[in-house]
Amino acid sequence: MGEFFESIPAVRYEGPKSQNPFAFKFYNRDEVVAGKPMKEHLKFAMAWWHTLCAGGTDMFGSETMDKNFGAAPGTMEHARAKADAGFELMEKLGIEYFCFHDLDLAPEGATLQETQRRLDEIGDYILGKMERYPVKCLWGTANLFGHPRYMNGAASCDSPEIFCYTAAQVKRTLDLTVKLGGSAYVFWGGREGYDTLLNTDMKLEQDNIARLFHMAVDYGRSIGFQGDFLIEPKPKEPMKHQYDFDAATAIGFLRQYGLEGDFKLNLEANHATLAGHTFQHELRTAAINGMLGSIDANEGDMLLGWDTDEFPCDGYAATLCMYEILKSGGLRGGLNFDAKTRRASNTPEDLFHGFILGMDTFALGLRKAAALIEDGRLDEFVQKRYAGYTEGIGKKIVSGQTDLRELAALAQGLEGFRPAPGEREYLEGILNQVLFSGE
Amino acid sequence: MGEFFESIPAVRYEGPKSQNPFAFKFYNRDEVVAGKPMKEHLKFAMAWWHTLCAGGTDMFGSETMDKNFGAAPGTMEHARAKADAGFELMEKLGIEYFCFHDLDLAPEGATLQETQRRLDEIGDYILGKMERYPVKCLWGTANLFGHPRYMNGAASCDSPEIFCYTAAQVKRTLDLTVKLGGSAYVFWGGREGYDTLLNTDMKLEQDNIARLFHMAVDYGRSIGFQGDFLIEPKPKEPMKHQYDFDAATAIGFLRQYGLEGDFKLNLEANHATLAGHTFQHELRTAAINGMLGSIDANEGDMLLGWDTDEFPCDGYAATLCMYEILKSGGLRGGLNFDAKTRRASNTPEDLFHGFILGMDTFALGLRKAAALIEDGRLDEFVQKRYAGYTEGIGKKIVSGQTDLRELAALAQGLEGFRPAPGEREYLEGILNQVLFSGE
Amino acid sequence: MGEFFESIPAVRYEGPKSQNPFAFKFYNRDEVVAGKPMKEHLKFAMAWWHTLCAGGTDMFGSETMDKNFGAAPGTMEHARAKADAGFELMEKLGIEYFCFHDLDLAPEGATLQETQRRLDEIGDYILGKMERYPVKCLWGTANLFGHPRYMNGAASCDSPEIFCYTAAQVKRTLDLTVKLGGSAYVFWGGREGYDTLLNTDMKLEQDNIARLFHMAVDYGRSIGFQGDFLIEPKPKEPMKHQYDFDAATAIGFLRQYGLEGDFKLNLEANHATLAGHTFQHELRTAAINGMLGSIDANEGDMLLGWDTDEFPCDGYAATLCMYEILKSGGLRGGLNFDAKTRRASNTPEDLFHGFILGMDTFALGLRKAAALIEDGRLDEFVQKRYAGYTEGIGKKIVSGQTDLRELAALAQGLEGFRPAPGEREYLEGILNQVLFSGE
Amino acid sequence: MGEFFESIPAVRYEGPKSQNPFAFKFYNRDEVVAGKPMKEHLKFAMAWWHTLCAGGTDMFGSETMDKNFGAAPGTMEHARAKADAGFELMEKLGIEYFCFHDLDLAPEGATLQETQRRLDEIGDYILGKMERYPVKCLWGTANLFGHPRYMNGAASCDSPEIFCYTAAQVKRTLDLTVKLGGSAYVFWGGREGYDTLLNTDMKLEQDNIARLFHMAVDYGRSIGFQGDFLIEPKPKEPMKHQYDFDAATAIGFLRQYGLEGDFKLNLEANHATLAGHTFQHELRTAAINGMLGSIDANEGDMLLGWDTDEFPCDGYAATLCMYEILKSGGLRGGLNFDAKTRRASNTPEDLFHGFILGMDTFALGLRKAAALIEDGRLDEFVQKRYAGYTEGIGKKIVSGQTDLRELAALAQGLEGFRPAPGEREYLEGILNQVLFSGE
Ligand SMILES: [Co+2]
Ligand SMILES: [Co+2]
Ligand SMILES: [Co+2]
Ligand SMILES: [Co+2]
Ligand SMILES: [Co+2]
Ligand SMILES: [Co+2]
Ligand SMILES: [Co+2]
Ligand SMILES: [Co+2]
Repeated sequence: MGEFFESIPAVRYEGPKSQNPFAFKFYNRDEVVAGKPMKEHLKFAMAWWHTLCAGGTDMFGSETMDKNFGAAPGTMEHARAKADAGFELMEKLGIEYFCFHDLDLAPEGATLQETQRRLDEIGDYILGKMERYPVKCLWGTANLFGHPRYMNGAASCDSPEIFCYTAAQVKRTLDLTVKLGGSAYVFWGGREGYDTLLNTDMKLEQDNIARLFHMAVDYGRSIGFQGDFLIEPKPKEPMKHQYDFDAATAIGFLRQYGLEGDFKLNLEANHATLAGHTFQHELRTAAINGMLGSIDANEGDMLLGWDTDEFPCDGYAATLCMYEILKSGGLRGGLNFDAKTRRASNTPEDLFHGFILGMDTFALGLRKAAALIEDGRLDEFVQKRYAGYTEGIGKKIVSGQTDLRELAALAQGLEGFRPAPGEREYLEGILNQVLFSGE
Repeated sequence: MGEFFESIPAVRYEGPKSQNPFAFKFYNRDEVVAGKPMKEHLKFAMAWWHTLCAGGTDMFGSETMDKNFGAAPGTMEHARAKADAGFELMEKLGIEYFCFHDLDLAPEGATLQETQRRLDEIGDYILGKMERYPVKCLWGTANLFGHPRYMNGAASCDSPEIFCYTAAQVKRTLDLTVKLGGSAYVFWGGREGYDTLLNTDMKLEQDNIARLFHMAVDYGRSIGFQGDFLIEPKPKEPMKHQYDFDAATAIGFLRQYGLEGDFKLNLEANHATLAGHTFQHELRTAAINGMLGSIDANEGDMLLGWDTDEFPCDGYAATLCMYEILKSGGLRGGLNFDAKTRRASNTPEDLFHGFILGMDTFALGLRKAAALIEDGRLDEFVQKRYAGYTEGIGKKIVSGQTDLRELAALAQGLEGFRPAPGEREYLEGILNQVLFSGE
Repeated sequence: MGEFFESIPAVRYEGPKSQNPFAFKFYNRDEVVAGKPMKEHLKFAMAWWHTLCAGGTDMFGSETMDKNFGAAPGTMEHARAKADAGFELMEKLGIEYFCFHDLDLAPEGATLQETQRRLDEIGDYILGKMERYPVKCLWGTANLFGHPRYMNGAASCDSPEIFCYTAAQVKRTLDLTVKLGGSAYVFWGGREGYDTLLNTDMKLEQDNIARLFHMAVDYGRSIGFQGDFLIEPKPKEPMKHQYDFDAATAIGFLRQYGLEGDFKLNLEANHATLAGHTFQHELRTAAINGMLGSIDANEGDMLLGWDTDEFPCDGYAATLCMYEILKSGGLRGGLNFDAKTRRASNTPEDLFHGFILGMDTFALGLRKAAALIEDGRLDEFVQKRYAGYTEGIGKKIVSGQTDLRELAALAQGLEGFRPAPGEREYLEGILNQVLFSGE
Repeated sequence: MGEFFESIPAVRYEGPKSQNPFAFKFYNRDEVVAGKPMKEHLKFAMAWWHTLCAGGTDMFGSETMDKNFGAAPGTMEHARAKADAGFELMEKLGIEYFCFHDLDLAPEGATLQETQRRLDEIGDYILGKMERYPVKCLWGTANLFGHPRYMNGAASCDSPEIFCYTAAQVKRTLDLTVKLGGSAYVFWGGREGYDTLLNTDMKLEQDNIARLFHMAVDYGRSIGFQGDFLIEPKPKEPMKHQYDFDAATAIGFLRQYGLEGDFKLNLEANHATLAGHTFQHELRTAAINGMLGSIDANEGDMLLGWDTDEFPCDGYAATLCMYEILKSGGLRGGLNFDAKTRRASNTPEDLFHGFILGMDTFALGLRKAAALIEDGRLDEFVQKRYAGYTEGIGKKIVSGQTDLRELAALAQGLEGFRPAPGEREYLEGILNQVLFSGE
C-alpha cells in the first residue's frame, strides 16, 4: 500500500493569517475552547461514500473524479484501496471518525452470502487498520435506496419480498456496525415515501417502517448494540415525498410508534433547508424534545431546490449550530461531513480543500458560539424576556394551577398592555459584532 | 334593511352549458352523488372575514372594495349591516354555514367589558337571523393575531399579561361559539411562532400553547361545548416560522401534550402547499391518524411564496381532495371558503363569481371523485399492489409475528426479486380520462 | 431485427370511454380541430435520449430500466438496435418526428475521427429507415454537457481547447442534422453558466457563447441549413446558474449580440416553472417578441426544485399552452417529449403509457384551446378591456403623438376614475366550464 | 420643533469592541478604505417611506409603531413633523441622503391641484432644512401602486385615463425631484405586470410602459434633469408577475425600446433573491452591461417567499456586493435602505438599531471587499483561469478571427484534454479567512 495523496502534506493549524492552502486557519484540535479541546466538541467524521466512492456525477454528466485508487472498481482490491486511502486522508486531516453504508465498504456480490463474505473480509481489514490508527466508527447505515429493488421503497415497499431483503440488509449492517464499534446506527429513508398518492397506501407503508424499526431495535439490543438508533429526516429527493420530512415529523412518528426510547435524530443542514427550516430550527426542535443525536455537517444552496451536500462554508450557520449544541449540553454523536466537492473540484487537492473548509468553518463556529455565550448578551436577553413566567400569575400558568376563568378575570384592565419589543436588529448586531470583531 | 346585492339574483344550477354568469354549472345542491345530496357532502361555509370585512388591501396598496354596506366602519350599525349582507349572500348562494373570528362580528371596544357587550349584542342579532334562515355556524375562532398586543404571540407571548388577555378572548369566543351553536372551535396560530431564534425560548412557548389548549378544552367542556377543537396548521406568514407547520407537526404536538382526544385538524389547501405538501398529502396524513376535522377550501399560487387565499379553481386538486374525503368516510366538518377575490376583482359581482367558482370547483371535484371510485381502477390497483401483505410472510410482518432473523433467512434467494412498477403514468391517464371524459 | 415491444399493439384512438390502456382517449390524429388535422397542430417528437438511452437513474439510485434492446451498450449494434426500437415505438404511436443529441445516436469513440465515423454510419442507417417510414427529424443538438471535459462549460469554458472541441462537436452535429433533414438546431446550455462567481468572468463567458453562435450560424448557412437555430432556456441545474435563465433573458441575449435574425426559442414547460414562470408566460413572452420556435412538452412538479421532466398530464397547462400557440398562429416547430417515465415506471408498457398520457394530454389541450376560442368569451373580454387604446387619447398614446404635459393636463378631474375589475374569478369559471363541460 | 428621538444620542464610531448599542462598530465615516473615506463609498440613504411612514402592519396585523411624531396623520403638520424627524434621524446617524415617493412627503389631496400645492409646500420646507443640514436627495419616485386606481397597473393599465393620471404623477414627481436636487429618478413597477394572462394583453402593456418611459425622459431632460433614470426590477409581489422580473429582463427591455442611453438599474438585494438570483449575480449582470446605477440595501429571508425588506445583516452578502461595486469602479448612485424594522421591533430604539445594523454591515462589507482585493488571491485566480484567451487560438476566438472549420480542425487530438478544476472550496476558504481573520 502506497500513499494515495502524495502531493498533500499532513494538515496542521497555522492560524488565521496563514496563506498555506493545506493548513487549518481556525481548527486547532487540542486548543481548549468552552472547557474542552476543540476535537472533543467537534467529532468530525469522514463519510465513506462521498469521500471514497463518489465521482462527481450529476443528472447531466458523468464522473469527473478518479476514485479508483489504483484498483479496478467492483473488486475487493478496490475495497481495500479505498480503506487505505480513507485512512490516509483521515490521518492527514486529523479526523478520528468515519461513517459508512454497507455497500460503500465492499461491492455487492451475486448472492447475499457472497456480499456477507465480502463485508466480513473488509470489516476485518478495516478493524486491522483501526488497531494501528486512532480512528473510530461514528455510525453505520444500510444502503436501502441505490439498488433497483428499492425503487418502491425498502420497508415501505409494496412487496413483502423486499421487506425481507431489507431486513437481511439491516441485520448484516447492524452486525457490521457492532463489529466496527460504531456508536450509532442510522436510518435514512430515501425511498421510504411516495411518488404519487394515486398508487400508495400511506398508512400501511408507515406502519411497516415502524415494524422494521422495532425489529431492528430488538435485534440490535440482542447482539449487544448499546448505541443510538438515528433517523435522518429529509423532505424530498429522491422520492417526491419522503415520510421523514423533518425533525418534528420524525419525532412525532417515533412517539406514535413507541420508538422514542431507542431513537434519536441525525440532522443534516441541507435537509433542514429543503424542508423550509433553518438548521438551527431543526437542532432546537430536536434538543427541546431530547432527540438531538448526531449531525450531518454540510450545507445546501438556498437558491437551489435539491440536496447539493456542499462542504459547509457559512460562518453564521456553523456558529448558530454550535450555539445550539453548546446550549444543549454538547452533542451525543459527531459531525459527519455528508458533503462532496463540486463536480468541477475534481482533484485530490480539491478534496482536501473541501475538508479543510468544512473543519475550519465548524471550528470558527465553535469559537464564535463560545464567544457568544461568553459575551452573554443574547442569553441575558432571552432570560429577561420570559422572566414573567417565573413569578406571580406567570408561574401559576406554567405550573398548571390556573384556568381560563381566573385568567380572563385577570385580563380586565390589561387592554392597553403591550409586550416589549423583540429587538431582532439589536441582537443581530451583537451576532455580527461577535462574529467579525476578530480575536 | 335593504338588499345589498341588488344586481345579483339567487344563484341556481343551470348545468354545464349555461352561459349565465350567475348560475352554477356543476353544483346542484339536491342532486344525489355518491349516495347523498351534494349539499350534504359539501357543507360550504362563508368566512365572515374575507367576505364581509376584507377590502382588497395588500402590502403595497390600500382598499379597492367597499365593504361598508351603507354604514360607518367601527359602529354596531356596520356590524349589523355586515350580518345582513352576509345572510343575503348566503341565501342567494344557498350556503348554509358560516365561520367567524370574534372581532369579525363586532368592532373591539375600549375595554374588555365593552367588547363583550358588543359581542353579546351582535350574537343576539345573528341568532335572530338564524331563526329565520336555515344557516348554521360551522365554527368560531378568536382573532389572536391582528392586534399589536399579539405581535410576539398570544399563548406563546413572552408576557404573562398577554397570556391572560388571550385566555379572556378564547373564553369569550368559546362562549359565543356555543351561543351560536357552532360545531367546532378553531385555533390558528398565526403569531404562535418566532421571528428569530435569537430571542426565543421555543420550549416554553410550545408548552404554554399546550397549556392554553388544555384550559380551553376544560372550559369548553364545562359550558357544554361538545364539538371538535381544531388546529389549523400553517408553516409561515405572518411569522417567519409558526409552530403548527403542517399536519404531521400538529398531530405530533397534540399527541405529545395529550390533546389528541379533543382536537382534530382544520386543513387549508393554501397552507399545505406553503409547507411543501400537496393538499392531498395533508388530508391523507390527517385521515390515517384519525385527525381529519374540517377544511379551508381555497388555493394558493404554486409560483408565489405567500398565502394568496384564492377561491379554488383547480379541478385536479378539488377532485383529489374529495377523493380523500370520500375514501375516509366523509368530512366531520365542512368546507370553509377561507378565500378572497383578487384585489382587482373588487365588485359585488366579483364576490359572487368567486363563490360560484369555488362551489362549482368543489362540486366538480365531488362528481369526479365519485366517478373515480365508481370507475374502480385506481382502488383496484392499490388493493392488488399491497396484496402480498394479506398472506404468508407479509401477513406475519403486519401482525408482528416475525423478527429480523427470520426475515433475513427468507431473503436468501431473493437477490433477483424486483417489485412491480408503480405505473404512475397509467394511473394519471385514468385520472385525466375520468376528469375530462364528460358526463 | 425483431420486434422490441411485442406485447404492445399499435395505439389507436378509441375515444374518451375506452378502457384499453393502449388506446388514445383524446388524440385522434386525422380529426380536424381548429381547421387542421390534429397531427398537423401537434407535431409530436420522440426524444432519443429519454426514450432510448435513459435507464431510470437518479442521484441516489442506479438503473431500473433495460434499454439494451438485446445488444451490448457502447457498441454500434446497440446504436442500431436503439434506432430500430425507436422507429418501432414511433410507428406504434403514430409519432412522426424525433430529436437527438449527437451522442444519443452512437457511442463516443476514442478519437474525434472514430466518433465521426460512427455518426456517419448510424446517420446512414437512420436515413435508410426514414426512407421506409414517414418519420422526420425535428431537430438535432450536440451533447455539450455530459462529458467531464465540459465540467466548466463548453463555449463558456475557461480553456480555449474546450472551445475548439465544442466547435468540432457543433460542426459535426450541424452536419448530421442537415443530413437527416432536421428542421432546427438547438443549443441547450446546461453547462453554460457558473457554479460560483468567485471564479467566473461572466462577461467573457457570455461573449464567447455569442461568438460560438455566430460561427454556428455562419457554418450552418454555408452548408445549406435553412432551419431555425433555437436556444432552450433553463435557469439552474446542472449548474447553479445557467446564463439562459428564461425566455426574456435569452431574447435579450440574442438581441444584444445581433443573433435575433437566425435564432428562436425552444421552450420547455419544466424549465419555465423552475425559473418562476408559468409555461404560458414563457410562450407569451416568446410570441410577442416573434421568438416562438418549438417546445419541449413535459411538466415538472411544482413542489420540487429540480427538472423532473415528467410526461405532461396537466390539462390546464396543456390547454393554455395550445391556446397561446393557436393565438400566435401556430407553432413553427413541434412538440418534443423531453420527458421520461418515473424511475418506478420501468417497463416497456410504462414507456408507452407515458407517451399515451403526453399525447392525450396535448390532444385534450388542443381540443379545449380550440373550444375556448370558439366560445369567444375570453377573447372578447380582453378586446373590450383595452378598447380605450383604439380611440381618443388612448390612440394618441399608442401612436406616440402625445407627451407628459398633454397627458398631465388631461388627468385633471380624473381623481375619482377607477378602472374596471379584472374579473379573474369569472374568467377562471369560464375556463373550468370549457374544460369540464364535456363534448 | 422638538427632538423626536430624545433618548437616542448621536451615533459615533466606537470600534468593534464597544458594547454601546448606539455606536457603530464598523462604520467609521471618515476612515479611508480602498482610497476613499468610507462615507464616499457608502452613500447611505434614508427611505422616507419605511422610516417615517410605515407602522409595522403586515397582512395579518395592524400597526405596532407610532409614526405620528406628535401630529395627526393626513395633515401637513404631520408631513412637516415627519421631515423634522427624518432630518433628526439622518443627523444623528450621519446619513447624508434620502429617497422618497411623492406621497411619502405629503398626503394626497382631493384634487391633483391640491396635492400639487401640498407637494410644493413640503418641498419648500424640506429645501429649507437642506440648507441648514448637509443632506441631499439621492432619488425620487412616484407612488404608482398604493392607490386603488392603480390596481390594474399604472402605465400598463387597461384604461387610458389611468395612463393620463400616471403621466401627471410622474411629471409632478420629476419636478419635485429636480427641485430637491435629486440625482436620479426611479421607476418601480409594482403594479406593472399581471395577475392572470387570461385577461391581459402583455404586448400592449409592455409597449405602453416603454411609451411612458420615453415621455418621462423627454420631459425630464426638458426641465434640466441630468441624472439617471432607474428601473428597479422585482419579480412578483404585489402582482403575481411583474414585467421587470430581474436585471437581465429589465436590461433587455431597455435595449428593445431604445431606452438604454438614459436608464440604469436600481438593484435591490431582496428582489434579487425572490427572482432566484444572488444579489451578486444581479450586480454583476448590471455591471458588465454598463447598467449599474444604484442599490437598495436590504435583505430578504431565503426561506420566505415574499419581500421582507430587512435591514441588511449578512456579512457575506454585503462583502460580495461591495466587491462587485469596487471591481466595477464604484457606484454612480448610493445605498438606499429600503428596509424596515421587524413588526415586533417597534420602538425608536429599534429603528436606530436597524440603521446601525445596516450601516455597520455594509461598512464591514466594504472593509472586507477591500481586504479581498488587497489579498489578491481571488483576482489572481480568475485572471490565470482565463489566460488562454489572451494568446494563440484563444486570442483569435475573442477577436473574431476564426470559424467553426478552423476550430474543429484544431480539436483533433484534444480528446483527452481536461480543463483545470474550479476550486470553489479553496476560494471559499479564502473568503472565510479574509472575513473572519480580524483586522
Ligand atoms: Co443531503
Ligand atoms: Co445526510
Ligand atoms: Co390561508
Ligand atoms: Co384558513
Ligand atoms: Co428539462
Ligand atoms: Co428540454
Ligand atoms: Co423590496
Ligand atoms: Co426597493
